[in-house]
Amino acid sequence: MNKEQIAAQYKSLQEQICKGLEELDGKAVFRSDVWEREEGGGGRTNTIANGNLLEKGGVAFSAVHGPVSEAMKKQLGLEGNAFFATGVSIVLHPFNPHVPIIHMNVRYFELDNGTYWFGGGIDLTPHYVVPAQATLFHQRLKAICDKHDATFYAKQKPWADTYFHIPHRNESRGIGGIFFDHLSENNTDLSKEQLFAYCSELASSFVSIYAEQANLGRELPVLEEHLVWRNLRRGRYVEFNLVHDRGTKFGLFSGGRTESILMSLPPLANWEYDYQAKEGSEEMKTLEYLGKDWDWV
Amino acid sequence: MNKEQIAAQYKSLQEQICKGLEELDGKAVFRSDVWEREEGGGGRTNTIANGNLLEKGGVAFSAVHGPVSEAMKKQLGLEGNAFFATGVSIVLHPFNPHVPIIHMNVRYFELDNGTYWFGGGIDLTPHYVVPAQATLFHQRLKAICDKHDATFYAKQKPWADTYFHIPHRNESRGIGGIFFDHLSENNTDLSKEQLFAYCSELASSFVSIYAEQANLGRELPVLEEHLVWRNLRRGRYVEFNLVHDRGTKFGLFSGGRTESILMSLPPLANWEYDYQAKEGSEEMKTLEYLGKDWDWV
Repeated sequence: MNKEQIAAQYKSLQEQICKGLEELDGKAVFRSDVWEREEGGGGRTNTIANGNLLEKGGVAFSAVHGPVSEAMKKQLGLEGNAFFATGVSIVLHPFNPHVPIIHMNVRYFELDNGTYWFGGGIDLTPHYVVPAQATLFHQRLKAICDKHDATFYAKQKPWADTYFHIPHRNESRGIGGIFFDHLSENNTDLSKEQLFAYCSELASSFVSIYAEQANLGRELPVLEEHLVWRNLRRGRYVEFNLVHDRGTKFGLFSGGRTESILMSLPPLANWEYDYQAKEGSEEMKTLEYLGKDWDWV
Repeated sequence: MNKEQIAAQYKSLQEQICKGLEELDGKAVFRSDVWEREEGGGGRTNTIANGNLLEKGGVAFSAVHGPVSEAMKKQLGLEGNAFFATGVSIVLHPFNPHVPIIHMNVRYFELDNGTYWFGGGIDLTPHYVVPAQATLFHQRLKAICDKHDATFYAKQKPWADTYFHIPHRNESRGIGGIFFDHLSENNTDLSKEQLFAYCSELASSFVSIYAEQANLGRELPVLEEHLVWRNLRRGRYVEFNLVHDRGTKFGLFSGGRTESILMSLPPLANWEYDYQAKEGSEEMKTLEYLGKDWDWV
C-alpha cells in the first residue's frame, strides 16, 4: 500500500461522502473546485450551501507534495527534504440550531526519509448539548475504535477534549469525539495497513453518524432565540478555528489555499459583548456541559 | 508628568469619547463594566449596542501593572521586572454598510527600568470604499500629525498599511490610517510630554473624525445586498483580529480579560465560500481599493 493508493482511497471517500450528504440534505448539491498547488499536487474542494439541512458545508480532498519548507521545519519540526500529504476534511454548519455542527478529518503524511503517520478525528459541536445524543455519538465512535484497537477510544477521546478546548473561554468547542495524530506502526499495535483501515472506516462511517444526529434535530421548531444562540456558538467556532486550530493556522501562514482552509467558517455568526445565559435556560445547561470534559459513554 | 497622570487623562478621554458617541448615535447609551486584574490594576470597558448608528461598539480604558510575565518576555522581548500599561481602545461597528468600521487606540507603557513608550493609531474600514471619504479621513489624520511632528504622517501612514494587511487574503483591512509603536524621546524629536500631547489629541479628535465619516453615510438607503456585503467584510475584520492582530493575540494568550479583548468583534458576520464580486460592481471596486496601498492625501 503506497501513498498513491491512500490518496486514491481518500478521494473516493470524498465522493462517497458528498453523495451521502446530498441525499441527507435532499435539496442542495455540492459544487467542486479543483485546484493545483504551485509546488506540487492539488485538491478538490467540494462545498454546499443553502440546503434543506445544511446552511454551509465543505468536504475537501487534497494530495500535495513538495520540498519541506522552512515554515514546516519550524512549526512541525519535520526532518526530511520532501513531503507528501493527503486527506479529507469536512465541516458542516446546519441551519437548524438543534442539529450539531460536525467536523471530520483523516490525513496521511509521509517524508522522503521513510517516516509516515496518520492523523484525524471526528468531533461534534451541538449548539444545544443533549446528553443522550452526545452519548450516542460517542458510542458510535467507540464502536469503530474498538473494532480496530481496544485502546484507541480511551486514548483518543481525551486527546479530542484537550485539542478542542478554547482556553480564553475556558470552554470546550463542543462535546468532543476522537482526535489522533502521528500514529504509525512505531507507536501503536497496528500495521500501516491496519491504521489506514481504521482511518478509512472513520471516513466511510461519517455520513451515517451525522445522519443519525441530524435526523434527531432537523424537524424541531426554530425560534428566534435559538438562532441568536446558534450564531453566538458559531462565533465560538470561529474563535477556536482562527485562534487555536493548528491546521488552520499552519495552512494560513504557510500559504495554503485560503478558501479551502476557511471553508470551515460558518455562515452568519455573531458576537455579543459579555452575553449572559439565563439561569436554568437551555443555553445555560449547554454552557455547563461545555465547561468541563464528560465521559459520555 | 507621571504614569498616574497619563492614566487619569486616558480615563477622562474615555468618558469624553463615550459622551460624544452617545450624542452622535442619538439613541443608545454605553454600559460600563468595571473590572480588576488579579495581578494589579484594572479597567472600565464601556460598550454600546443597537443604537441608531452603532450596532455594536466598545470604548475600553485600562491601567494595569504587575510583574513582567514569561509570556511578555518571550512575545514582547521586554527587559524589566515590572510594567505599567494604560490606554484607550475603541472599535465601532455601525449598522449602515455605508458607514465605516473604525478603530482607535492610544497606549502608554513603562517598565521599572525607566524605559517607556507610546503607541497607538486610528484606522478606518469602510464596507464600501469611497475615495473622497478616504481622502478626508487621511487629511484629518495628517493635520493632527503635522501639528506635532512634520515627519509623523509620512512614517505612520505606511506603518498602518503594513500592520493592517491580511496576508492570507492579500487585502488591506480597510483604507488604513496611522499606526505607531514604541515611540519615545529616544527615537523621535519630541519629548515625553509632547508625545503624550500627540496621543491625547488623537483621542480627543476621535469623535469629530468619526462623526464626519458617519454623517456622510448614515442616511443612505440600505439594500439587502449591502447587508450581505457588510457581513462578509465583517468576516474579514474577524480574520484580521483573530489571526493577525498582535494586541488581540497577546491579550488572549496572556490571560487578559476575554470580553474586553474581543469587544472588537462584530455583530452578525458571514463567511461565504469563495465569494466573487461582480465585475464593475461597487463591491469589486472596494476590493480593488483594498488590493494595494493608496496615497489618499
